[in-house]
Amino acid sequence: MIKALFPASFDPIHNGHIDIINRAAQIFDEVVVGVYDLPDKDLLFSLDERFKLVQECFNDRSMITVVTYSGLTVDYCREINAKVILRGLRVFSDFEYEFRLALSNSELAPDIETLSFITNKEHSFLSSSTVREIALLGGDVSGMVPDNVLKALKDKRNS
Amino acid sequence: MIKALFPASFDPIHNGHIDIINRAAQIFDEVVVGVYDLPDKDLLFSLDERFKLVQECFNDRSMITVVTYSGLTVDYCREINAKVILRGLRVFSDFEYEFRLALSNSELAPDIETLSFITNKEHSFLSSSTVREIALLGGDVSGMVPDNVLKALKDKRNS
Amino acid sequence: MIKALFPASFDPIHNGHIDIINRAAQIFDEVVVGVYDLPDKDLLFSLDERFKLVQECFNDRSMITVVTYSGLTVDYCREINAKVILRGLRVFSDFEYEFRLALSNSELAPDIETLSFITNKEHSFLSSSTVREIALLGGDVSGMVPDNVLKALKDKRNS
Amino acid sequence: MIKALFPASFDPIHNGHIDIINRAAQIFDEVVVGVYDLPDKDLLFSLDERFKLVQECFNDRSMITVVTYSGLTVDYCREINAKVILRGLRVFSDFEYEFRLALSNSELAPDIETLSFITNKEHSFLSSSTVREIALLGGDVSGMVPDNVLKALKDKRNS
Amino acid sequence: MIKALFPASFDPIHNGHIDIINRAAQIFDEVVVGVYDLPDKDLLFSLDERFKLVQECFNDRSMITVVTYSGLTVDYCREINAKVILRGLRVFSDFEYEFRLALSNSELAPDIETLSFITNKEHSFLSSSTVREIALLGGDVSGMVPDNVLKALKDKRNS
Amino acid sequence: MIKALFPASFDPIHNGHIDIINRAAQIFDEVVVGVYDLPDKDLLFSLDERFKLVQECFNDRSMITVVTYSGLTVDYCREINAKVILRGLRVFSDFEYEFRLALSNSELAPDIETLSFITNKEHSFLSSSTVREIALLGGDVSGMVPDNVLKALKDKRNS
Repeated sequence: MIKALFPASFDPIHNGHIDIINRAAQIFDEVVVGVYDLPDKDLLFSLDERFKLVQECFNDRSMITVVTYSGLTVDYCREINAKVILRGLRVFSDFEYEFRLALSNSELAPDIETLSFITNKEHSFLSSSTVREIALLGGDVSGMVPDNVLKALKDKRNS
Repeated sequence: MIKALFPASFDPIHNGHIDIINRAAQIFDEVVVGVYDLPDKDLLFSLDERFKLVQECFNDRSMITVVTYSGLTVDYCREINAKVILRGLRVFSDFEYEFRLALSNSELAPDIETLSFITNKEHSFLSSSTVREIALLGGDVSGMVPDNVLKALKDKRNS
Repeated sequence: MIKALFPASFDPIHNGHIDIINRAAQIFDEVVVGVYDLPDKDLLFSLDERFKLVQECFNDRSMITVVTYSGLTVDYCREINAKVILRGLRVFSDFEYEFRLALSNSELAPDIETLSFITNKEHSFLSSSTVREIALLGGDVSGMVPDNVLKALKDKRNS
Repeated sequence: MIKALFPASFDPIHNGHIDIINRAAQIFDEVVVGVYDLPDKDLLFSLDERFKLVQECFNDRSMITVVTYSGLTVDYCREINAKVILRGLRVFSDFEYEFRLALSNSELAPDIETLSFITNKEHSFLSSSTVREIALLGGDVSGMVPDNVLKALKDKRNS
Repeated sequence: MIKALFPASFDPIHNGHIDIINRAAQIFDEVVVGVYDLPDKDLLFSLDERFKLVQECFNDRSMITVVTYSGLTVDYCREINAKVILRGLRVFSDFEYEFRLALSNSELAPDIETLSFITNKEHSFLSSSTVREIALLGGDVSGMVPDNVLKALKDKRNS
Repeated sequence: MIKALFPASFDPIHNGHIDIINRAAQIFDEVVVGVYDLPDKDLLFSLDERFKLVQECFNDRSMITVVTYSGLTVDYCREINAKVILRGLRVFSDFEYEFRLALSNSELAPDIETLSFITNKEHSFLSSSTVREIALLGGDVSGMVPDNVLKALKDKRNS
């Protein structure tokens, strides 16, 4: 039985994340979606808001659980006994960031494996920061995020 | 039960391949190592030689099987009922090639997933073509390939 | 009145080419599609076949003309009085090739401008070589090329 | 008649921008230089200062107009009826940023086309941030910016 | 006699820096390690702390001197009569940054040459920011930094 | 006294090579320009022709010697007692190739250092293959190569 962690800050979750999490759930026995608690970074949504938006996307899926965590990702993997860290690679520049992260994690914890999905071409241009930028300027992101996130972005903009 | 295919031309197999195949066997229930039959390409070792060298590396591992195949990789996956194609990403330029391959495969067969391991930093500079180039010029590749391949390269050079 | 040349070897033309040529025809007064005569390179289709397949895609469009040419692209631009060379950039590695080509052309002919379209995400994985590889292995490329090319690829495979 | 928008934050305008805007004016009927109003970002020059410095560079060119704008770039294009967004690609890493921007814009407004010029090799190392960094440390940027910007940078440094 | 400057912010120095400085001292007559004074940037260690940590790593090496400096790097080179600026290239994305820096420096001072070492594969994933991130989350960085830095990071975390 | 080898196939030598070799001769005590003997590769000029064209560019420079060599570059370095291999990095894709080469060489010979110059922006688009392509199509390469190479290319074209 293989448990896999999909960690991200999800500020906010978008359709690219959802697609990869659903594809992962076809392969691994349990997928834990880890909403990372980043106290220092300047975020649009609070940890609670980000967690709630992610959870609403998967609340009818028994093999997908949503959690929040902080500290080193590899330490959290060991705590929950996850053997695999999942990442989604977009064709854009995050490859280098991902590579460095994977090598650092393997240095810290050689027993935990990082496996990467290739992001679908439909979502290759999508990132949480793109979603935030467009939404806060009043652009239409309805094709990029699920309905609950769309509503949350509108509320944020009007507040 | 997840069966995964690791396809490559293995001309010849090197320590980077072996590391990833062993790591994959920790995660997936069965790993099929597919030696690709490329009739047109200019290769150093024949299909039989490449298959034999790969097989010798894993002949005591029950969940790793070695095969040869030709045609489209996704067609072969369906034939053997493999749900996952495994690849090893090096930090070097093959990322773009890998990305294109993964998107083409997903276009042809959306039900088969490509998952990528990140190559260990020890093997980040290793490729079959580097091994061939150095070995044929008389350089020492004993740290890059297993003993049976080392011997086969020497035989090839002396023939 | 701006005349623009879209040069390529079109071996064969695919949906990514067609999309960019149609988008170019919305902007420039005349788009000349130049099928490049590459005597040395190993091609699947002859110059005549490539020209005919391209022409069939645009034969009802008055501001799109299809030609064959050889020699330096900038020399041909001057011959037909085209002020602009059009290229399609995919997110993949051809950017570096394109950049070098554009700088060489600007060195040889500073009066001729290279302008690049960004390839639509639908076609980001598409290249003529991908089409050839998949088609010759019997894969389904019906979503990647127009019908006349699909038929030509089948004929080529059966011959 | 094709109207094209060249949008940037111009903090400050440099010789690479000027070269591309002049080349664009050889091809398009009207080039609108859009100085983007970025309220949140930490900028060296105010919107008014940036606008004035840009305007001084083109005040004798009838087909080049300089404006300020805010909000989504594609919304502004529609407002002024510009069919084309122009960008300058440097060989450096901004390609990935540009690609993502172009795909986002095409998602939001498929009727507006992004066209990219290749930055001249003379200006390939130039960016507004390089200019700012060097100038604020007292380095000589006289070969990188026009005279009015050179003076403005000196004033800024002495203030 | 060739004097070479190795400039960096060293926040903090790590094993990748030390390896390259030692390799440089095999080739150049004198290596000056320049700890850059960055007043604006958000740093973990103060200039004094960074200088002291670097100095402790090389205090028994007569041809390696450690200094602090501010302003333009090329101006400082001229001041100390260093003909060469040394940099370490990692395979990761800093190549583009390095290239731009080298071209800017050569624009400002054509008489000063930038020479790049290739970072050893052992340190290819290492950067000061990776060290800071892992250390501040309580991860083990003992394989990435010398002992004095390890102690300084622990003190910083506990303070 | 540091002896440095600048190895390349020089098919043919161009202004980018010459610039870097001259810059290297300002720094190292002796620069050996090694014309690599590649029996298998399809070259425009023979080893003798390539050697002669390189030698003519430096025949009045006492600290620059031109040689031909074959086999592993690191073996040749040891034979002539060169401690350093010099390379020129262009901003284009050869970085990845260069990195892999440097790491392989350091694996084979940790005592020999690879040092890279950054190619001047004037020559950033220049490569031997670009020169060959343009010259053989009748384009003007007089700004890219020295006079003796220009003449040799014309002779080759007319033969």
